[in-house]
Amino acid sequence: MAGLADADVVLIGAGPVALFSVFQLGLYGLTCHLVDSLDRAGGQCIALYPDKPIHDVPGFPAIDGEELTARLMTQIAPFSPTFSFGRTVSGFAAEEDGRLRVLLDGAESLSARTVVLATGLGAFHREDGEACLRPGPSRDWPLARTGDAFRVGAETFETTTAGVFAIGDACHYPGKLRLILSGFHEAALMTQAVRRRLAGGGRTTLEYTTSTRVAKKLRGAAAGEE
Amino acid sequence: MAGLADADVVLIGAGPVALFSVFQLGLYGLTCHLVDSLDRAGGQCIALYPDKPIHDVPGFPAIDGEELTARLMTQIAPFSPTFSFGRTVSGFAAEEDGRLRVLLDGAESLSARTVVLATGLGAFHREDGEACLRPGPSRDWPLARTGDAFRVGAETFETTTAGVFAIGDACHYPGKLRLILSGFHEAALMTQAVRRRLAGGGRTTLEYTTSTRVAKKLRGAAAGEE
Repeated sequence: MAGLADADVVLIGAGPVALFSVFQLGLYGLTCHLVDSLDRAGGQCIALYPDKPIHDVPGFPAIDGEELTARLMTQIAPFSPTFSFGRTVSGFAAEEDGRLRVLLDGAESLSARTVVLATGLGAFHREDGEACLRPGPSRDWPLARTGDAFRVGAETFETTTAGVFAIGDACHYPGKLRLILSGFHEAALMTQAVRRRLAGGGRTTLEYTTSTRVAKKLRGAAAGEE
Repeated sequence: MAGLADADVVLIGAGPVALFSVFQLGLYGLTCHLVDSLDRAGGQCIALYPDKPIHDVPGFPAIDGEELTARLMTQIAPFSPTFSFGRTVSGFAAEEDGRLRVLLDGAESLSARTVVLATGLGAFHREDGEACLRPGPSRDWPLARTGDAFRVGAETFETTTAGVFAIGDACHYPGKLRLILSGFHEAALMTQAVRRRLAGGGRTTLEYTTSTRVAKKLRGAAAGEE
């Protein structure tokens, strides 16, 4: 199988919650590759209601999916994520070295240390100019579900398969609300669980972007430095 | 005791997380009264680092505490919250009718159906132009703690005292991160628990601000209608 760009984390989906995950993971030096069935970033926000104002994103009395997506793309630019658009993920498999192989439609695949399902309500595709939702192959994946969502713990957002996480509308836990702002929180907690996993367990310090060191790192990443 | 304006919910604190709670609670018709030791809204964001850019508020590559506070004040304006600034809460007590009486410094008090602790790291006060943090009387309140934070469940954000909730930096649960974005999520889930409590249990529908009905309500609230 041909190999696409490998990454520390492969995110399935490129909606607002997947995009913000790139920022959180990037703060800890983790690289991301996002795969989405649409031909651009934004997920259901741009597929279902691109021009409809959203009023409950904190700090924005009103914002539409287009602007929210554009702002998140600017916010994550310092971390240079890789995107594969117009592709769906057909499955994934554990490899001998502990990595996960993510299988795409067609014969390609990519290798990741961790997979994060941020698939929203499912895979979208365009049909006669309309956005259509199809459940996608994830329905058949061997992960425990509650209704149409993957069951996770609200501390780690790990699914019932080790190394596979789910956030945003694709996950379920007690009290879950399908709000974008909850997805942002889930991205932050997932990031801590992923870095603990990849660091082999140890607990390290939470990064605050108000710290001078992190602000410097963000400027450095924006300037294309390592 | 003289009575200040009563409300469905008394929020202790007026930082970003308390402010966003007004929006969430307001969507369900619940009125809010916020009490803060500072002389204005913004909490530790404006007391400790008013001009320092924050980089991890989703949708804002950089924003300072002043701008975030101003934007949240605009976002909640449709719900006309009441503020009591320069006041600290000395305690609260259950009343016979099931309401809670919130005692302020001095002899005043106000009555609430629910109390939400959104006190951040504690009560701030100004001393020689510097922002100083003091633990405040909440240390003595009969609520279970983990370290300096009130212990809550991550589904309801209710403390060990029924009807008293805690969110933001003032709360602790497994996986808790002291990030503003987590406080916004906690505000949304707390709101659902509060409305279930005040409605006597029943489960009602989650409001999406993209719905035409809710958008109309927001416009109505902005225009000063009931």
